[in-house]
Amino acid sequence: MTTQELVSQIHKKKSFLVVGLDTDLDKIPKHLLKEEDPIFEFNKAIIDATQDLCVGYKPNIAFYEAYGLEGWKSLEKTINYLNDNYPEQFTIADAKRGDIGNTSTRYAKAFFETLNFDSITIAPYMGRDSVEPFLAFEGKHTIVLALTSNKGAFDFQTQKIGNQEVYKKVLETSKTYENSDRLMYVVGATKAEYLTDIRAIIPESFLLVPGVGAQGGSLEEVCKYGMTKDIGLLVNSSRGIIYKSQEEDFAQAAREAAKSMQEAMQAILQTL
Amino acid sequence: MTTQELVSQIHKKKSFLVVGLDTDLDKIPKHLLKEEDPIFEFNKAIIDATQDLCVGYKPNIAFYEAYGLEGWKSLEKTINYLNDNYPEQFTIADAKRGDIGNTSTRYAKAFFETLNFDSITIAPYMGRDSVEPFLAFEGKHTIVLALTSNKGAFDFQTQKIGNQEVYKKVLETSKTYENSDRLMYVVGATKAEYLTDIRAIIPESFLLVPGVGAQGGSLEEVCKYGMTKDIGLLVNSSRGIIYKSQEEDFAQAAREAAKSMQEAMQAILQTL
Repeated sequence: MTTQELVSQIHKKKSFLVVGLDTDLDKIPKHLLKEEDPIFEFNKAIIDATQDLCVGYKPNIAFYEAYGLEGWKSLEKTINYLNDNYPEQFTIADAKRGDIGNTSTRYAKAFFETLNFDSITIAPYMGRDSVEPFLAFEGKHTIVLALTSNKGAFDFQTQKIGNQEVYKKVLETSKTYENSDRLMYVVGATKAEYLTDIRAIIPESFLLVPGVGAQGGSLEEVCKYGMTKDIGLLVNSSRGIIYKSQEEDFAQAAREAAKSMQEAMQAILQTL
Repeated sequence: MTTQELVSQIHKKKSFLVVGLDTDLDKIPKHLLKEEDPIFEFNKAIIDATQDLCVGYKPNIAFYEAYGLEGWKSLEKTINYLNDNYPEQFTIADAKRGDIGNTSTRYAKAFFETLNFDSITIAPYMGRDSVEPFLAFEGKHTIVLALTSNKGAFDFQTQKIGNQEVYKKVLETSKTYENSDRLMYVVGATKAEYLTDIRAIIPESFLLVPGVGAQGGSLEEVCKYGMTKDIGLLVNSSRGIIYKSQEEDFAQAAREAAKSMQEAMQAILQTL
C-alpha cells in the first residue's frame, strides 16, 4: 500500500485508528476456546466488527510466537483474512526486528513476502545496514522505534549524544538511509510533549503512536503536536479495544470502543 | 543450563565454539532439496558432524521465519533434536527481540518455554522493562546486543552519551537490571580492541562473539582482550563452517572447519 492510499483511507473513514491484535488465550472469551483456532476466530470477529472504523491492524507478533507453530498458523490465517477481505487495511507486523544485512533481508522476506504485511516495526540499535534491507522493498513501509511509550525509554532513548537525544539522532540518521521515504516511526503517546521537536526533524513522516488510553496518552495532545497536512498519524489501541468484554458480546464491545475512538478522531479531523 | 555447566563443557571439549545455523535453501547442497524437510536434514547432519567440537548451536531465527510455517517447523525440529540428543549443548535463539513488558514476556515464553532454548539474543533500545521480562526466567540466559560486528554499529552504538559510548552505557545500565547475573552480551570480534574497556565494565559476563573468520575478526585478539578466568567467551561461526562445501561431503567439510577452530581454541586454552 502506498502512503497516498493510506492517507485516502484516513479521509474516507475519518479515522487514523489502528487496532492492535495482542491476542492472548488467557484473555479472550471462554466460549471461543472450543474452536479449532480460537486466536484466529477471535481476530476474525474483532476485524469484522471494527474494520469500517479503523485504517489498519497490528498483530503483535510475540503473542503468536508464544504459541509456537499453532500461533504462527493463527498469524498466517489472520493476515490472509485481512488481505483477502479488507485489502484497504494497512497491516503492521509489530515484530521489533533488526539484524545485520542478510539476516534483516530474511526478516523482511518473512513479513513482506511470505506473510505479505504492508509494514513491520524495527529496532534501530544496529544502525544503517540493519534497516536498509527492509527499506529495499517497494510498496512496503519500515516503522523504526524512535521514542517508545515505556519507562525503559529513559534508559537510552532520551540520553543525550552531544546535544541531541538518542531518539533524535535515530530520526536524523535514518533520514540519510537509502529509500528513507519508506520510513515511519514509533513515537509513544505518553510523550506527546516531545512531538514538536520530532516534527522539526521529520515534518512529513507517518508516526505510529501507541499508548493512547491504556497507557495514559492523550489523543488531543498527540494530534495537536504531531499531525501533518496529510495527517501523518496512526494511533494504535490494543487492549483498550479488543478486551472490552470477555463475554459473548466481545466483538460488539470492541466495536463500541473503536467507535468512540473513531468519533474522537473525526471530531479532530473536522477542525482542520 | 547453568553458567557453571557451560564452563564445564568448555573445559571438557577444549572449545568455546558455537556453530551458527543460518540455514538457507539457496546454499545447502542440492541433493537435500528432495528431502521432506531439507532445512532440518541439513541441520541434523551439521550437528551430528560437529557436536563434539563445539559447546553450542545458534539458529538464526530470521532464516526460519523467512519460510513461514515450514520454517518454523524446521526450527522446532532442530531445537528438539538438539535437546533430545545433545542436551549438553548451549542453545541460542538468535532472535534480536525486545518489546515492552508483557510482550517481552511472550517472546521469552516462545523461546524459553515453547521451544526450550537456553538463551536468546535481545536488542536493548527499549531499556529496562524490555529486558527484565527475559531475565525473570531461571536457568535461562539473555544475551543483550552491546557492540555488534557490522558497520551500522557506528551509527549509534559507538556514539557518546556524555563521556561514555552508547554500548558502554548499555553494559553499565544492564548491570542494574534485576537478575543481571543471567545476562550475556554480543560483542563483535571485528572490534576486539574495545574488549579491554568492555571487560572493565563487565569483568565476568559471558560474551557471544560473532565475526571471527568470515567478517575478519581474529580469535587470538578476542581471547587476548576478552577471556576471563572462566573463559567467558562463546565464539560463533556460521557461514565459515556450515557452507564449506555444497556437495555430498558438506557435513564432513563442516566438521573439518569446526575442527580447525576447535584446535585453535584448544591451543589458546592450553596456554592459560
